[in-house]
Amino acid sequence: MIDKKIFDEVRKTIGKQKVFSEKEYLLTYSYDATALEFQPDLVVFPESEEDIENILKIAYRHKIPVTPRGAGVGYTGGSIPLKGGIVMVFTRMNRILAIDTENFLAVVEPGVVTQHLQEEVEKKGLFYPPDPASLKTSTIGGNVAENAGGLRCYKYGVTGNYVLALDAFLINGEKFKAGSPVIKDVAGYNLKSLLVGSEGTLAVISKITLRLIPLPQHRVSFRVDFNSLQKGAEFINYAIRSNINPSAVEFMDRSSISAVYQYLGLPLDDQLKATVIIELDGNRMDVEERKNKFVQIVQDYDTLCFQAAETSEEQEKLWDIRRNISPALTKLNPEKINEDIVVPTAKIPATVEYINQLAQEYDLVITLFGHFGDGNIHTNLMLNPEKQGEMERAEIALDKIFRHVVAVNGTISGEHGIGITKKPFMKYQFSELEMDLFKRLKQSFDPENLLNPGKILNFE
Amino acid sequence: MIDKKIFDEVRKTIGKQKVFSEKEYLLTYSYDATALEFQPDLVVFPESEEDIENILKIAYRHKIPVTPRGAGVGYTGGSIPLKGGIVMVFTRMNRILAIDTENFLAVVEPGVVTQHLQEEVEKKGLFYPPDPASLKTSTIGGNVAENAGGLRCYKYGVTGNYVLALDAFLINGEKFKAGSPVIKDVAGYNLKSLLVGSEGTLAVISKITLRLIPLPQHRVSFRVDFNSLQKGAEFINYAIRSNINPSAVEFMDRSSISAVYQYLGLPLDDQLKATVIIELDGNRMDVEERKNKFVQIVQDYDTLCFQAAETSEEQEKLWDIRRNISPALTKLNPEKINEDIVVPTAKIPATVEYINQLAQEYDLVITLFGHFGDGNIHTNLMLNPEKQGEMERAEIALDKIFRHVVAVNGTISGEHGIGITKKPFMKYQFSELEMDLFKRLKQSFDPENLLNPGKILNFE
Repeated sequence: MIDKKIFDEVRKTIGKQKVFSEKEYLLTYSYDATALEFQPDLVVFPESEEDIENILKIAYRHKIPVTPRGAGVGYTGGSIPLKGGIVMVFTRMNRILAIDTENFLAVVEPGVVTQHLQEEVEKKGLFYPPDPASLKTSTIGGNVAENAGGLRCYKYGVTGNYVLALDAFLINGEKFKAGSPVIKDVAGYNLKSLLVGSEGTLAVISKITLRLIPLPQHRVSFRVDFNSLQKGAEFINYAIRSNINPSAVEFMDRSSISAVYQYLGLPLDDQLKATVIIELDGNRMDVEERKNKFVQIVQDYDTLCFQAAETSEEQEKLWDIRRNISPALTKLNPEKINEDIVVPTAKIPATVEYINQLAQEYDLVITLFGHFGDGNIHTNLMLNPEKQGEMERAEIALDKIFRHVVAVNGTISGEHGIGITKKPFMKYQFSELEMDLFKRLKQSFDPENLLNPGKILNFE
Repeated sequence: MIDKKIFDEVRKTIGKQKVFSEKEYLLTYSYDATALEFQPDLVVFPESEEDIENILKIAYRHKIPVTPRGAGVGYTGGSIPLKGGIVMVFTRMNRILAIDTENFLAVVEPGVVTQHLQEEVEKKGLFYPPDPASLKTSTIGGNVAENAGGLRCYKYGVTGNYVLALDAFLINGEKFKAGSPVIKDVAGYNLKSLLVGSEGTLAVISKITLRLIPLPQHRVSFRVDFNSLQKGAEFINYAIRSNINPSAVEFMDRSSISAVYQYLGLPLDDQLKATVIIELDGNRMDVEERKNKFVQIVQDYDTLCFQAAETSEEQEKLWDIRRNISPALTKLNPEKINEDIVVPTAKIPATVEYINQLAQEYDLVITLFGHFGDGNIHTNLMLNPEKQGEMERAEIALDKIFRHVVAVNGTISGEHGIGITKKPFMKYQFSELEMDLFKRLKQSFDPENLLNPGKILNFE
């Protein structure tokens, strides 16, 4: 708990318009996109690195936990203040400090909204590829903390592939830098890559230097429909092995398709059991060449329907289907458990089949969609808590899914991080020694476990 | 020192044909591509993970330092046993365990020679892009330990971009895994990226899972000559900003050119002051399109001569010039200090000018060449120790070069690592806190400082 004296000290140090303890603030910053809720004692809105330093120094002196927070749209509770204390909200540190067209880089504060950065760099003919589904609200700081993915990872990689350098603070308020604003740097240990994806548990990131690339000039998308789930699942590896270098390879199973078609009021063919959406981008001739190759590949495969979207209008329409899955699914059942498992792409068909069997066996609605080109299967358990035993059956099925993923050399999280909700499954993927190494790393940055405590592992 | 008893214990445990303490062995494994020499007490050649475990357990029990070693061709002393003890040579663990064409990955032992892996995967239509200049002798294990670069990094990234997973041992012989054989994985802290580039100081890597990509079908190279160093240096950023996505952007200054032309017996134009070599690869139409764009760009620039190499014979001839720089330079002067600084690409012209001024001021032969597209300037001080004061003047100039690099936000090492030789310059790039964080990381893996001691920093 934070008493009046500490509250006053924080307000006096950084300014009272940046520090709040009113109920509505504590409530607003108590949750994210999970169903969890833990209230902080204090909400602070730093506006500068000096503010961050001052807040951390006070918090550290009084041994108060600090949880950094971007837009709070995470799926695993990463930004929820599990142990109370201070939530440090970065929405006011939302300046793009530089877009350097000479050196192809951007320098931003953590609170910059991802889409805003993309729009600004695209105005200058440059491209920041990472595009998590949340990009309209999520922040670069949050993306870095979770090492966010998105739709274009197959070709362009994840957030971490674009982070060149970070400015950050240790929990005690000491500032340090990690990485350099150049594309090759092997001096010292790779602090930067360790911070990326560390879910705000090692340091508070205050400034981010990102690599930009030239904006692709041309884009074409395809929808390929299948009359069987397996044919669709097998098509993924078939397509990516053909050297078409897609920028996106997305998959939708029957339940995602039917939910989204209903949501958008589109007619639905009974035979349609799976859809794959593929995007190619690059220079015009290059896209043309790969498009021809892809058309050939599709002709040799047993598909139900094949459609190319060339104009931006056609492409918008096509991608609208994919983008509306999440809102459409919420209509299926009131509760959603949203997982982001990854398996080697050759294991996708077997994994899809296994999860379908589990859905039948445990009488559950499980929809599968997502970035199958990356092996990344968004596994959504759509639940009705009023149905007897449903939550318990879901828990058993989920546990089996994670065990399966690890058994086929996959990972329990490709995008969302571990946060709070995935902690119970860490033991399937990591040995005791590996978990102990994680603890040692945490301790070397935050020996008193004050920074975003209770995430990834229990470090006490 | 290792006494007879320990020697016998190691031989008895892993087999006497794998353990040597003869003088010729101790000498052979006492040096690398630097001028340094430190002899081990024992040289072991593990042939399996079991051997590694057994050696480490014995060494740990007796508190004997262990230094892992690949081909020993490093430029900073990374594989030299500075504190004696055991050198663990990986040349016998050189099996390619799998080339998985379904999931686009390779699993290898650390001792696999880089070029051998490349040849094997190319037979299957796949591509392992990292190509350090040493690829004919250097090993994947060494490449991973140093996070090796090469000529194709601008487009394809460095070794670390292809490492999906590692099997490794702690100094006490405990085994762990880092990463997963999938392209997206955010579960737990990023142990894998921490191990890549850690120069064998954190763990002994026993197995490496690498990402492969489809083999580019077509390739074209260009040589662009300039009548001034500055024009050549300025051309780099001009070219890479034009969206031609080159796979290689190499630079040679006058002294590299004249050394290599002399070495190859080629006639040399007096006006020729700098050469840029550019390679484009990809699908045929794509390369054609970018080639046309590049030709346009070159026409708008003040060049001395421009040549396209399309056939593989023409390309071989062109790249031969670049590849022969290192052997050619050794003819200039007996001693070489070979640095691998990196600066933001827009800072290349100023950096080149600064180093040239230093060369004049301190009466030194300094040749500049390398991967300028990455901002990576191979800075070679070609020295004659018999010239009075030359070594001292070189030391002063080198110190100034490193200070300059850090002042323009570059890094003191883009490829070679810190090892022993760059330790004195770490303080320019890193604050005391950053160096302390490095120490804490080292301690969390190797608290007794037994694994490759004396590298990167002094951890005692």
